[in-house]
Amino acid sequence: MSKEYRIEHDSLGEIEVSKDAYYGVQTQRALDNFHISGIAMSHYPRLINALAYVKLAASDANASLGLLDEQKSRAISRACEEILSGKLHEQFVVDVMQGGAGTSANMNANEIICNRALELMGYEKGDYDHLHPLNDVNMSQSTNDVYPSALNIALILEVRELMDAMRHLKKAFAAKGKEFSDVIKMGRTQLQDAVPMTLGQEFSAWAVMVGEDVQRLDEAQHLVHEINMGATAIGTGLNAHPDYTRTVTEKLVESTTLQLVSSPDLVEATQDTGAYVQLSGVLKRVAVKLSKICNDLRLLSSGPRCGFNEINLPPMQPGSSIMPGKVNPVIPEVVNQVAFAVVGNDVTISMASEAGQLELNVMEPVIGYSLFQSMNMLQRASRTLADKCVSGITANRERCLELVENSIGLVTALNPFIGYEKSAEIAKEAMKTGRSVYEIVLEKGYLSQEEIDDILKPENMVKPRYIKRS
Amino acid sequence: MSKEYRIEHDSLGEIEVSKDAYYGVQTQRALDNFHISGIAMSHYPRLINALAYVKLAASDANASLGLLDEQKSRAISRACEEILSGKLHEQFVVDVMQGGAGTSANMNANEIICNRALELMGYEKGDYDHLHPLNDVNMSQSTNDVYPSALNIALILEVRELMDAMRHLKKAFAAKGKEFSDVIKMGRTQLQDAVPMTLGQEFSAWAVMVGEDVQRLDEAQHLVHEINMGATAIGTGLNAHPDYTRTVTEKLVESTTLQLVSSPDLVEATQDTGAYVQLSGVLKRVAVKLSKICNDLRLLSSGPRCGFNEINLPPMQPGSSIMPGKVNPVIPEVVNQVAFAVVGNDVTISMASEAGQLELNVMEPVIGYSLFQSMNMLQRASRTLADKCVSGITANRERCLELVENSIGLVTALNPFIGYEKSAEIAKEAMKTGRSVYEIVLEKGYLSQEEIDDILKPENMVKPRYIKRS
Amino acid sequence: MSKEYRIEHDSLGEIEVSKDAYYGVQTQRALDNFHISGIAMSHYPRLINALAYVKLAASDANASLGLLDEQKSRAISRACEEILSGKLHEQFVVDVMQGGAGTSANMNANEIICNRALELMGYEKGDYDHLHPLNDVNMSQSTNDVYPSALNIALILEVRELMDAMRHLKKAFAAKGKEFSDVIKMGRTQLQDAVPMTLGQEFSAWAVMVGEDVQRLDEAQHLVHEINMGATAIGTGLNAHPDYTRTVTEKLVESTTLQLVSSPDLVEATQDTGAYVQLSGVLKRVAVKLSKICNDLRLLSSGPRCGFNEINLPPMQPGSSIMPGKVNPVIPEVVNQVAFAVVGNDVTISMASEAGQLELNVMEPVIGYSLFQSMNMLQRASRTLADKCVSGITANRERCLELVENSIGLVTALNPFIGYEKSAEIAKEAMKTGRSVYEIVLEKGYLSQEEIDDILKPENMVKPRYIKRS
Amino acid sequence: MSKEYRIEHDSLGEIEVSKDAYYGVQTQRALDNFHISGIAMSHYPRLINALAYVKLAASDANASLGLLDEQKSRAISRACEEILSGKLHEQFVVDVMQGGAGTSANMNANEIICNRALELMGYEKGDYDHLHPLNDVNMSQSTNDVYPSALNIALILEVRELMDAMRHLKKAFAAKGKEFSDVIKMGRTQLQDAVPMTLGQEFSAWAVMVGEDVQRLDEAQHLVHEINMGATAIGTGLNAHPDYTRTVTEKLVESTTLQLVSSPDLVEATQDTGAYVQLSGVLKRVAVKLSKICNDLRLLSSGPRCGFNEINLPPMQPGSSIMPGKVNPVIPEVVNQVAFAVVGNDVTISMASEAGQLELNVMEPVIGYSLFQSMNMLQRASRTLADKCVSGITANRERCLELVENSIGLVTALNPFIGYEKSAEIAKEAMKTGRSVYEIVLEKGYLSQEEIDDILKPENMVKPRYIKRS
Repeated sequence: MSKEYRIEHDSLGEIEVSKDAYYGVQTQRALDNFHISGIAMSHYPRLINALAYVKLAASDANASLGLLDEQKSRAISRACEEILSGKLHEQFVVDVMQGGAGTSANMNANEIICNRALELMGYEKGDYDHLHPLNDVNMSQSTNDVYPSALNIALILEVRELMDAMRHLKKAFAAKGKEFSDVIKMGRTQLQDAVPMTLGQEFSAWAVMVGEDVQRLDEAQHLVHEINMGATAIGTGLNAHPDYTRTVTEKLVESTTLQLVSSPDLVEATQDTGAYVQLSGVLKRVAVKLSKICNDLRLLSSGPRCGFNEINLPPMQPGSSIMPGKVNPVIPEVVNQVAFAVVGNDVTISMASEAGQLELNVMEPVIGYSLFQSMNMLQRASRTLADKCVSGITANRERCLELVENSIGLVTALNPFIGYEKSAEIAKEAMKTGRSVYEIVLEKGYLSQEEIDDILKPENMVKPRYIKRS
Repeated sequence: MSKEYRIEHDSLGEIEVSKDAYYGVQTQRALDNFHISGIAMSHYPRLINALAYVKLAASDANASLGLLDEQKSRAISRACEEILSGKLHEQFVVDVMQGGAGTSANMNANEIICNRALELMGYEKGDYDHLHPLNDVNMSQSTNDVYPSALNIALILEVRELMDAMRHLKKAFAAKGKEFSDVIKMGRTQLQDAVPMTLGQEFSAWAVMVGEDVQRLDEAQHLVHEINMGATAIGTGLNAHPDYTRTVTEKLVESTTLQLVSSPDLVEATQDTGAYVQLSGVLKRVAVKLSKICNDLRLLSSGPRCGFNEINLPPMQPGSSIMPGKVNPVIPEVVNQVAFAVVGNDVTISMASEAGQLELNVMEPVIGYSLFQSMNMLQRASRTLADKCVSGITANRERCLELVENSIGLVTALNPFIGYEKSAEIAKEAMKTGRSVYEIVLEKGYLSQEEIDDILKPENMVKPRYIKRS
Repeated sequence: MSKEYRIEHDSLGEIEVSKDAYYGVQTQRALDNFHISGIAMSHYPRLINALAYVKLAASDANASLGLLDEQKSRAISRACEEILSGKLHEQFVVDVMQGGAGTSANMNANEIICNRALELMGYEKGDYDHLHPLNDVNMSQSTNDVYPSALNIALILEVRELMDAMRHLKKAFAAKGKEFSDVIKMGRTQLQDAVPMTLGQEFSAWAVMVGEDVQRLDEAQHLVHEINMGATAIGTGLNAHPDYTRTVTEKLVESTTLQLVSSPDLVEATQDTGAYVQLSGVLKRVAVKLSKICNDLRLLSSGPRCGFNEINLPPMQPGSSIMPGKVNPVIPEVVNQVAFAVVGNDVTISMASEAGQLELNVMEPVIGYSLFQSMNMLQRASRTLADKCVSGITANRERCLELVENSIGLVTALNPFIGYEKSAEIAKEAMKTGRSVYEIVLEKGYLSQEEIDDILKPENMVKPRYIKRS
Repeated sequence: MSKEYRIEHDSLGEIEVSKDAYYGVQTQRALDNFHISGIAMSHYPRLINALAYVKLAASDANASLGLLDEQKSRAISRACEEILSGKLHEQFVVDVMQGGAGTSANMNANEIICNRALELMGYEKGDYDHLHPLNDVNMSQSTNDVYPSALNIALILEVRELMDAMRHLKKAFAAKGKEFSDVIKMGRTQLQDAVPMTLGQEFSAWAVMVGEDVQRLDEAQHLVHEINMGATAIGTGLNAHPDYTRTVTEKLVESTTLQLVSSPDLVEATQDTGAYVQLSGVLKRVAVKLSKICNDLRLLSSGPRCGFNEINLPPMQPGSSIMPGKVNPVIPEVVNQVAFAVVGNDVTISMASEAGQLELNVMEPVIGYSLFQSMNMLQRASRTLADKCVSGITANRERCLELVENSIGLVTALNPFIGYEKSAEIAKEAMKTGRSVYEIVLEKGYLSQEEIDDILKPENMVKPRYIKRS
């Protein structure tokens, strides 16, 4: 294939750009400069769409304020709409890991939109005399308001998808909670046998846990609805029309249907990354709890013969290349690993946020990348956990009951009747002799058989109840 | 000093306890087992008071439900009130780093209260036949509801103090924002000269930033208002009267005047530490932003001759043992260090939270300790920063203005009039020749002197304005 | 394209596999189960090659111990060699984030090798009666020794590439250290003017810093030379021939030319991930230091008119979409971001390592993925920093000297002659009046002009020297 | 008590210092400025002693180079020796969390030594005309070489104590490894039953693990043997005699008997904190592994009736305030918590190290504090784990054997004889019917009873062996 080039220039000089490329000189420089993660912006289509939304709104606002020629504005709008319909995404080639606070991402967008709009206007790509990526497409804007505003829009969309996935997971746990509501089992604290409960209580608790996290995510996403369009370089709004901030924000609300608002202090908004830290902190919380739940699923399904063996996870794949018949809890295991990655990303985001200096946080690209990665993986992990694990879990009812009846933890229920010290003595004897609590307490004569039967009935132990003391 | 002992016993056997000690056998075992951090519970008086509140409320609830003898209950109440008045705190001797999910802390409280109550009832310390630390003081309770509930109460009190300190800091920044509202200076992005702003805008932005963090803390503290009293061992409420949860929670609300509520799912509440992770995540956010601000203060005061030198921090101590006259930004520096410790603590808390298993998170002691440490240090750091640094900051007005007039960043304001490319060309020439932007643009004849004067007037550059384009 | 399938089965049942695929049933299940990161194993070709090395060595060892038919062994060897020559890599399709401790990765390799070997033997893909992915290709092996051994080999290769990149960076700093050896400038501590030094000393220090990190990496990579082939499932060597461990390790040493050794305790080696934690800890150290150096480069090049402006970084791209002529330190900025990602990955690896249970650490896939990501990005960042930044840095000699001559920090040199207190007094006066230290000390008459000239000569201040005290 | 004061002054003015205090004006200022952690330097006696060693060596070196009067030097030496003998430690009052890169710590030492030396010379405290804390005690020094050099010496002593504690722990594991060498049990991977091993292999593996960590600590401590005495302010050695570095280092080697060496590049050494990051990384590794081992101990002792119940940890305290007879693994639990704190501290140290700027890392105090805290807690945790847990562990032999005989994992051993697929089929049937592997394989007639007996004999499964295949 013969490669043809056009020559573009910027303040640093001339450079060759592939003739077919919609991007231009500054994107080309970014490609040369940043070969770091090997992951292009196009991996995050929501960020690309969010940039298109921002450029479209800015162009509309500029036109309505009489700053931008109608014909130019229309061409820009059409180019943006093409992007929003899924076209040209492969032209967003810059590495997600980039210096410059997102300048390369912004310029990649400016250049693609400009060149596509030029085509739509009947000109050649690169013919910037008729439409300019900076003077026109980027009019009234700076990377420093475009990039974080676009990031926020993309994050809102991502976090909502995550919330959906987690609601799905919550339902899966809740359904099992109901299904297992009559499976009596031993509760455990500190991995030691504690007191009876139902397996349904256990699964319902996890449903509640996941549900609470959805609420926290919902709160956190509200913070990223605040955008700083009109801040331009440092929040002072230099070169922006006094009505621009209001106008562009309204246009964005209209096109995205998101309840975006303009930050009350644009200088603050342009340098602050607190909303990202908050969101990441909540993602970390989600991760930590999913990991805890997966640890529990793995514990309860440990065995089959030498572990707790209270539940069975659905077998998803043979577990071992050497141990025939072994089936491993591979789904919870991968969720654990996602959780660890998310906690790590949170540290990355904290450091990147701390590194902001004066009027701007130049580390926003790694913040955005880490957030997208965390949300994508958590979202997939949540759905995978729901569909490939939780919904197929079965209970070993007899095993669960047998463990309860055989347990020493039952003595706790004797506490209000015979006191802590006598109960401890019975526990000790059961431990030593291997006999059952029931048998020993009956033998000791502390209580009548009828009383004992009533107290030690598992169903009576899984909730508070009125206790008549002797 | 001759040491005298009394003999106490528990299910593991007999042990000597100092005759004067209000604590008993289980506290003594904890002292022997946990010599880890060297920091006793008594370092966190709010946690001790919170335990007293909980024990008092439980005793009242038990009495009002007819479970606990009135005389016993009254004695327990009086002992708790003594603790709340600041007495007996030195008896809380167990290490903050302890195994057992807080059992030792709970038992330390049970034993002190029991022995003091025994004295008040006219008995000897250790005479547990008349009042028992477990059967009576701990009635209807488990460490697993007492410890987290007390922790929550203590955290609410701590976080409120932190919020006060941060409001104080916010005011200090806001006052300087006002004071410096007419100091024109260069804004910087990526440490490169950007466009003009006022020093007041910079300080006001920090005030806003700190203020937003107070809001986030306020949201986070709401989460810890949910307590799990009545959960007993694992949330099922075994051994608790059906009305106990409601009653004890009401008593606690009354005595603490905090809007505490009972968790809707006590099984979930007893194993979940999400609220701590959330709170820690917000503390980390606070830390990251305070650190960013302190970095900025250090940058702006860098010099005095070879740095930015835009502001002067009040000198707090000679800066160097070898460099006479050197004055260092020691207050921001110590705030940075506090911030790093808080971010580290957040990782500790995440790991501890992830390590919870099944019906309980046994790692709560390190979670509590880390939260207290973070909040204490942030609170002191915020006040120190406000009082020993921010409030004494002065501006170098002439220096600030001189930098603006001498800057190349001014060309940005020419953008809407002569376009990006010509502006870049002027910037390049200024850079190369060392001449001023004003001079060059005038010479080029792109604009009239009147236009230039209007455009480049610093005051015109620090906010959006209506631009008439040629 | 019409998609054709063949039917394969495993212990869970039958499944369709694309007829063209070299992988088989277990890989297909893994594809269905793990859609998490969207990054396939094939992104890390070194891991694939390492698996081929391991399978080749195992097959050779099995043949030489008389356990595997010669014909089968030859076919396996040829398939492995094809992979090592770069073929079939696209068949390694499983997600890098996977449950099961690498079982899916191992099975992906077993199945590709088996099917390619079957073809070479003249059979159809899937005709496992003639060669079996488990009984033959995986003979004497378990995922639990294959995966970590392959991981180690791949890590050694990666870390060596990183070391090369860092040596390259070190040279770039050292060359500048030499070039700038006569540029006198002010040293700064705590961002405050300290005492003179040369710019060469500054760059040389960074060269030393990077060089020390290469040494640490070299030490860390020694640890991953220990492999656990022959451990089989849990380190006990069940189903392995007593001579197998020795034989397979020798074969691996031969084919890879790496100084691999067998772990002295295979049970320990199979569960321990300490070497990965150590390596990651060193990568974090590298990251932290690169970030510190990049922060310094950004500080020293801050300006051009309102900052330190001691050095110029080569302009790599226009710095701003709104500020014409602005050139930003984009290369150091991206290195900072890589560093933050590496520190985050270290936390991920720590948590994953802590989560190992009993005889195995099932979290190895996320450990491997995080290590590869950190090393790849650090390697690219180091080369980018060397070639696109450091090697093009120029010094502003006059500016540097002017700052020295104008500085107050010079008084430190007076210390041994007139004492700390008088020196401090001079500093104070210089500060207050704006006059130079030289002028004031001369005026005070503490020293003769000749003495002052000698003491305050910048060249005399950048190294220890014999001081004649009066 | 009537408080009496003396007046001292520094370059910032006059201040009252308690008449009895050995510290002076700068310490007093530090006390006023830094009320942050509430933990005084005196909590780390090794750091105080290390400062005394440094001051002593500097004074000796200065005297031997003819820079310091013999009488003054002798008095300084005597004061330092008193400190080394444990005196005056309570005078080290500054908060461990302090701004200024350790200036306050250094000045606290200078002032105590100076005032004590003045007394020894027959003068009053504060009579600095006869001996000056800066001109004399701090001669040829800067905080920037004194503080890190002292830190290093203290760290070496601390890390050695940690290594001793870990060797002690290693021995405890090794002894149990020997004691349990004939206890046959099931190994587990991914919490699923795997193949047989001995309990002795398990404990021996942990002994190896701890032993390897001691080796890593030993390597890491070598790095902190490099000190930067003679660097003075920024590593250039300004104001230091050309022979001073060599002399003072020799004196320090002599007095401490440590193999300290002078850094080859003092500029680098003064700004670099890589050795601390490395040491912290290794401490994190230790933490992660101890935590993993403790997790395992808690798993293996889970029960007593509803868990694995393979081992018994010695009961250290009653486990519950509500569940009589419950005994919890409190010692491993506290070690887990220490581990989490250490991982958190590692993040703190990484951030503090990254925050170093130009010629100095001003964040050294928080680095030092975090390292001391991590090492102290790990050291106590290791000894506690050895003495209060590991050494008292007993095995439940019958339970262990029963689990093996009952397990399905035994089919793995059939693999080489009947192939993976038939073995998987047997496993499946055993799973489904609850029958034993032995029984099913016998029934199927795949192997003779004699063969089966030989293959499935547990002792034959815990190591590699020569397998005759049919």
